[in-house]
Amino acid sequence: MSSVLSGTKIAVLGGDDRELILVSELVRMGATVVVAGFPRERVGHGAFVVNNIEDACKEAEVAILPLPGTSMEGVIRAVYSDQELKLTEKAVANLASNALIIIGSARQFLKDWAKKRGVTLLEIAEIDAVAILNSIPTAEGAIQIAMEETPSTIHGSKTCVIGFGRVGITLARTLKALGSDVTVVARDEGQLARAYEMGCRRAGFDDLHEIMNYSSIVFNTVPEMVLPRSILKYANPEILIIDLAAQPGGTDFEAANAYGLKAILAPGLPGKVAPVFAGKILAEVIPDLVIKELTKPDKNMLYG
Amino acid sequence: MSSVLSGTKIAVLGGDDRELILVSELVRMGATVVVAGFPRERVGHGAFVVNNIEDACKEAEVAILPLPGTSMEGVIRAVYSDQELKLTEKAVANLASNALIIIGSARQFLKDWAKKRGVTLLEIAEIDAVAILNSIPTAEGAIQIAMEETPSTIHGSKTCVIGFGRVGITLARTLKALGSDVTVVARDEGQLARAYEMGCRRAGFDDLHEIMNYSSIVFNTVPEMVLPRSILKYANPEILIIDLAAQPGGTDFEAANAYGLKAILAPGLPGKVAPVFAGKILAEVIPDLVIKELTKPDKNMLYG
Amino acid sequence: MSSVLSGTKIAVLGGDDRELILVSELVRMGATVVVAGFPRERVGHGAFVVNNIEDACKEAEVAILPLPGTSMEGVIRAVYSDQELKLTEKAVANLASNALIIIGSARQFLKDWAKKRGVTLLEIAEIDAVAILNSIPTAEGAIQIAMEETPSTIHGSKTCVIGFGRVGITLARTLKALGSDVTVVARDEGQLARAYEMGCRRAGFDDLHEIMNYSSIVFNTVPEMVLPRSILKYANPEILIIDLAAQPGGTDFEAANAYGLKAILAPGLPGKVAPVFAGKILAEVIPDLVIKELTKPDKNMLYG
Amino acid sequence: MSSVLSGTKIAVLGGDDRELILVSELVRMGATVVVAGFPRERVGHGAFVVNNIEDACKEAEVAILPLPGTSMEGVIRAVYSDQELKLTEKAVANLASNALIIIGSARQFLKDWAKKRGVTLLEIAEIDAVAILNSIPTAEGAIQIAMEETPSTIHGSKTCVIGFGRVGITLARTLKALGSDVTVVARDEGQLARAYEMGCRRAGFDDLHEIMNYSSIVFNTVPEMVLPRSILKYANPEILIIDLAAQPGGTDFEAANAYGLKAILAPGLPGKVAPVFAGKILAEVIPDLVIKELTKPDKNMLYG
Repeated sequence: MSSVLSGTKIAVLGGDDRELILVSELVRMGATVVVAGFPRERVGHGAFVVNNIEDACKEAEVAILPLPGTSMEGVIRAVYSDQELKLTEKAVANLASNALIIIGSARQFLKDWAKKRGVTLLEIAEIDAVAILNSIPTAEGAIQIAMEETPSTIHGSKTCVIGFGRVGITLARTLKALGSDVTVVARDEGQLARAYEMGCRRAGFDDLHEIMNYSSIVFNTVPEMVLPRSILKYANPEILIIDLAAQPGGTDFEAANAYGLKAILAPGLPGKVAPVFAGKILAEVIPDLVIKELTKPDKNMLYG
Repeated sequence: MSSVLSGTKIAVLGGDDRELILVSELVRMGATVVVAGFPRERVGHGAFVVNNIEDACKEAEVAILPLPGTSMEGVIRAVYSDQELKLTEKAVANLASNALIIIGSARQFLKDWAKKRGVTLLEIAEIDAVAILNSIPTAEGAIQIAMEETPSTIHGSKTCVIGFGRVGITLARTLKALGSDVTVVARDEGQLARAYEMGCRRAGFDDLHEIMNYSSIVFNTVPEMVLPRSILKYANPEILIIDLAAQPGGTDFEAANAYGLKAILAPGLPGKVAPVFAGKILAEVIPDLVIKELTKPDKNMLYG
Repeated sequence: MSSVLSGTKIAVLGGDDRELILVSELVRMGATVVVAGFPRERVGHGAFVVNNIEDACKEAEVAILPLPGTSMEGVIRAVYSDQELKLTEKAVANLASNALIIIGSARQFLKDWAKKRGVTLLEIAEIDAVAILNSIPTAEGAIQIAMEETPSTIHGSKTCVIGFGRVGITLARTLKALGSDVTVVARDEGQLARAYEMGCRRAGFDDLHEIMNYSSIVFNTVPEMVLPRSILKYANPEILIIDLAAQPGGTDFEAANAYGLKAILAPGLPGKVAPVFAGKILAEVIPDLVIKELTKPDKNMLYG
Repeated sequence: MSSVLSGTKIAVLGGDDRELILVSELVRMGATVVVAGFPRERVGHGAFVVNNIEDACKEAEVAILPLPGTSMEGVIRAVYSDQELKLTEKAVANLASNALIIIGSARQFLKDWAKKRGVTLLEIAEIDAVAILNSIPTAEGAIQIAMEETPSTIHGSKTCVIGFGRVGITLARTLKALGSDVTVVARDEGQLARAYEMGCRRAGFDDLHEIMNYSSIVFNTVPEMVLPRSILKYANPEILIIDLAAQPGGTDFEAANAYGLKAILAPGLPGKVAPVFAGKILAEVIPDLVIKELTKPDKNMLYG
């Protein structure tokens, strides 16, 4: 057992299988881990399980919330919990001074509380390392859906990837590797140059209606309305649209429905299709973040 | 409409979506196509639908049966038929003289009848072009199962492909492309050299028990008992075995069960996961075979 | 012949085969092109050839200089010219008012002149689209050198790519595709996550001395001293170092020499190994830039 | 030091760097190795160097000749020898009874002598494991030539591979991986199906004249006249032909010259571009062959 986190009290608040893997890793690294939102039997040896958030937070130097964050009302996603798990201001107040909250992305109320209480808030969904590693299960999950929902193969198919950011790049590479003829749609000339280098066709948004006509599967990764009615009307009737952008996606699903097109909104794939892998990502990234934050010079001073 | 097969009477006896695609292609090429084993509404324009096999075969120069062939009792696979579809000697006798029967692989009784009636029997499951093209949906179907059944990603996984023939090569290439660390197990040194060239690890059957220990997914393509109890006992408990060999596969499923290992027998994937693609293969290969056979010099003489 | 650039006077000042391809494209698009630094017989039909820079610049709305730019003294690279080609302030003054100068990267003196004369200066070496497209011939050129200089194959080799920017990504992908076992060394966690997604090993600079020990080829793309004596001393004696960073590279070549290591500085590969491809990049990117710049609203106003 | 070959006397007759690597491996495995055709200083410790073939063969149980074999007159390729190295009947007679001769491929005279003297002749050039492993340096060598001889990149090029055997498959895979648009020309439908599965276009020999028109690089691997004058006349003038087939290749070089086409005959690439890799192949394959042959039951009986 390593002892890098020895003596550090960490509260893990809700989540799914991914957090269970993270908890094991934190325990392995010597941390004192208190978990809320999971039944005792699901949590590995070495961690403490408590019934409510406020208890879990008491004197914790670090509180870890799931990647999807909370609802507007503070409800934390906790798939193995019978009761609703809700983040309260009192829970935040219970944390140690100079504590650290790690969360995918934070609602405004949490930002306010953190500021008020002098707690450092670390939003990790947008950290490149997390987002790029998560793009791997996202891409595989999207391809699994495509395989399940189409009567042909990815090999030899004509596919389109809209957006060429962290998910788009991984998805395009994977589709290409499977033998698909991939067109990347993006605005940025540099992104299109990279798509070309990777062996994809490249197009701008002006060409999208035409691409909808000859593609068999279209994957959207852009969290804006990129597939409105005016584009969807050009889609071939057999098309499958898989929208990976954060809710509500970038597709006019009502219009898709009206045109009889199959369109699937599929956010949050990593936790669904590959929880073990996604949990390992957390277990790889979060301990490093904790160590970096807790050993920051100004922190040390404050601790001193 | 092309007319290459103009005037040729072809009976299509049973099958699934694949045969429907084939029928459309044959009609497009000018053949007179009579179909048995499908309801009228599923069959495209231009083909005749009859109720029984013997009628369908009357004067037909070519009879086409599904890739999986028939049961020992002559029952033909016909997924859209309410009634049992059975091949009889009378049906074969009804064919035109010098007719051609195309089938995946034939049972002994059919070979006997064909010989007796002077009918040419063409078993196409073992034709390289058919088998290699079919390996594409087979590989994708196997990977789809792997994605559905494992909590991690193919990317970064340790997989093993047993056998390096037509399916094994395609599967190994596809897994590798998805970012898996692939070990190929085969006897032939040349096959292992090819696996190495493709970026895979290579091993002999002597190493199989060790490989079972560290692999997360094992795909078998060899239609022999290659995963007996004596090997399975070394498998890590989280392993997933996907057996693609023709029934009964190459795995001791009873032993796998006894050891608590997840093992799935998955033959006939092309028709299940990618019927359109698999139908296109038939539509690409069978008309050529028909033309070649019907225009053979000795055939022509007989027809003259 | 297109006429998008019809009536636009463009001066092309020096360069190599790449500029000749660009000139043909500009002529094809209707521009009036005046070329300096090439003998008449090398320049395609439709362009004017003059003997000196100042004449070429007279009334030109656009002046195009080579990607490598000029020396500190203003000398322009012009491989087909017998005479030295030198950019003077008078040449800049000769340009049309509101003219545009396109150059890879500009020395300070040129920035000063441009400011003084109200000329827009466009440095394109750092434009993503140009740099990423150029990374393709750079990567192939680097691999060609590796093939020529090593007695083994890239397939099965252990290689290291230092830096994971525009060139590093392309190079890593290409090496991986050729069957090499690639380690990417970078500081940024997001870059390392991407390297992992692409199937590479990933390491930080702290591990570099160890990597030097077991790699057979190391490619540097970072324009800083990343391979100093203190790292080189750990290199295995058979190593090949190919430094692609802009002069003077990121290798202590003197130390490499002292340790008997083979180290090659190879900047500017696109123009050397694939001038036609590299010329097409210019021909693809520069006309767009010219059109965008010349049709900018504020420009139009000034022209009005 | 292993001792698998302990006590086995092996004569290595001529060759190049590859044989030097093989010699070291044989010594490492305990064999008594006698070398002819190399100066003393090039041969590693532990092997004996003699001046002529007949001495080297005395009582040797195994004689190893280079992959390219001998000339019609028996001259053995020996790049490091000042004198001509010639295989004589007396040398064969000097071998131990039941000896084994290993050679790439044997001329008729050698087959006769071997038969007469009761010597087992093993022609290894056609052994799959050897030929497939050798296809790796062959493909890389061919690509190196293509990079050196063309002014554009492999990425984005249109290439053609004629023949889809052991070298053709490797070459097509590698070109494809580099981003080329590859057309495979072959007769066999199964081979073409495999090419399609690998992401290549596929064509028959009837389409070759058209392919010559739009390809920028054509690689031939078929040892027959597949590029005669009647095909070459359709080639685009910028084409590069790289002929990898054994001498005299499959190209009408005279006609190519007459049409002003660049055509290069490039046999024997492994020993030229990657002698270390190619030597490792010999060192991997030959000891196994020796052990298998020397321990064959019938051999043992004869020895008994």
